[in-house]
Amino acid sequence: MPRYRLIVEYDGSPYVGWQWQETGRSVQQALEEALARFCGESPRVQCAGRTDAGVHAIGQVVHFDLSRPWRTDTLRDATNAHLKLMGDAAAVLLAAEVPADFDARRSAVKRHYLYRILNRRPQPVLDARLVWHVPGPLDAAAMHEAAQHLVGRHDFTTFRAAECQASGPVRTLDRLDVSRLGDEIRIEASARSFLHHQVRSMVGTLERVGAGKWRPEDVRRALQARNRKACGPMAPACGLYLVGVDY
Amino acid sequence: MPRYRLIVEYDGSPYVGWQWQETGRSVQQALEEALARFCGESPRVQCAGRTDAGVHAIGQVVHFDLSRPWRTDTLRDATNAHLKLMGDAAAVLLAAEVPADFDARRSAVKRHYLYRILNRRPQPVLDARLVWHVPGPLDAAAMHEAAQHLVGRHDFTTFRAAECQASGPVRTLDRLDVSRLGDEIRIEASARSFLHHQVRSMVGTLERVGAGKWRPEDVRRALQARNRKACGPMAPACGLYLVGVDY
Repeated sequence: MPRYRLIVEYDGSPYVGWQWQETGRSVQQALEEALARFCGESPRVQCAGRTDAGVHAIGQVVHFDLSRPWRTDTLRDATNAHLKLMGDAAAVLLAAEVPADFDARRSAVKRHYLYRILNRRPQPVLDARLVWHVPGPLDAAAMHEAAQHLVGRHDFTTFRAAECQASGPVRTLDRLDVSRLGDEIRIEASARSFLHHQVRSMVGTLERVGAGKWRPEDVRRALQARNRKACGPMAPACGLYLVGVDY
Repeated sequence: MPRYRLIVEYDGSPYVGWQWQETGRSVQQALEEALARFCGESPRVQCAGRTDAGVHAIGQVVHFDLSRPWRTDTLRDATNAHLKLMGDAAAVLLAAEVPADFDARRSAVKRHYLYRILNRRPQPVLDARLVWHVPGPLDAAAMHEAAQHLVGRHDFTTFRAAECQASGPVRTLDRLDVSRLGDEIRIEASARSFLHHQVRSMVGTLERVGAGKWRPEDVRRALQARNRKACGPMAPACGLYLVGVDY
């Protein structure tokens, strides 16, 4: 029973998130339906990082098993053809056969996220639904300085959703870089794993620093508080991208 | 009677093109309606480059006159507020007062266009409607070599739409650079002015070179033919951007 790994790109805007839900179409549903239509089987697809409603991916990784082997080019192209036919905003970028012990979630050793802020007064046009629009000026250097207080092994209770199902609040954040590219502020975050809403909570807090409402040291104090109430307002889903996963 | 200049960004997908038409909403209509709603006047807006249906702009330039003066910040923000209310995919990036002899079209000394090709097998997702999707591999270096045959002062009859209303087919193309950035091929074109469909005709021809169907020298021969029939297939509107205009 061969196991396959896919790298998947999707626009999170039209979906209720990665996972199947009663309330609407999920990315998982789109992908499982496309697979079923082409190969006649109904594999359950496991992903590396369950993205929330509105969150995008350019490098989500999934795995699943099929009872018969397929050429990986065929798997990719046929799945894409069905995604396109169904009008889905998702595509398979790469398909590969992997060993039976590969697990998209458990085998992952690092996850990379990008958060995009459009920092200009006029509303987004070409990037509508693909960025968080912050009209007031942001100081990216101050945001980067503040971000460095979060890098390392910490108790991230402050930056964790109340509904987070992880067993503990301690994570090692390997990278949290903030840089400006014209009108855009890009925040790049890497870690073995993240807590629920961790990136959006950190970004929303850094935005407060960028706007001059918080000092960079306030972010350290928020972290040390280990209290969700010490967090800044959470950044919206539309600016967040799962960029890639290392194994 | 003050004259104003705006720099405008728009997503061309939902519009019939820049210019007013019976068949649907144009960018000009959106902009003129937004201005009328905020200032109570009905100025006629003149642009630097009339883009076709589906063509985007990140730096379209327009001018118009109003009978009373406005703060340029107010002009920009109020116009954007009305564009947003009307659900338009357009925004004013910059507003400035200009001398009465400034003319967005006639005063322009150079126009810059960008054409984006997504060159990968899977369909576009995050860039849907914003790129031309070419699934087969393209050789960007060969396209760049071929493009250099078009740079300079030439009779561009081959690359001119039959319905082009310009008085003559001779233009000076200052720049036509092709480069690859990951999965994307970017074609940057600059000239004082372009003929109707010139950029899309040149890009469609260069794509034939990239695909290995034409040799770079064939593009020179096509140019020398001075015959529309010698042109490659025209590239679609969705990959084209008016990037900026110099004065």
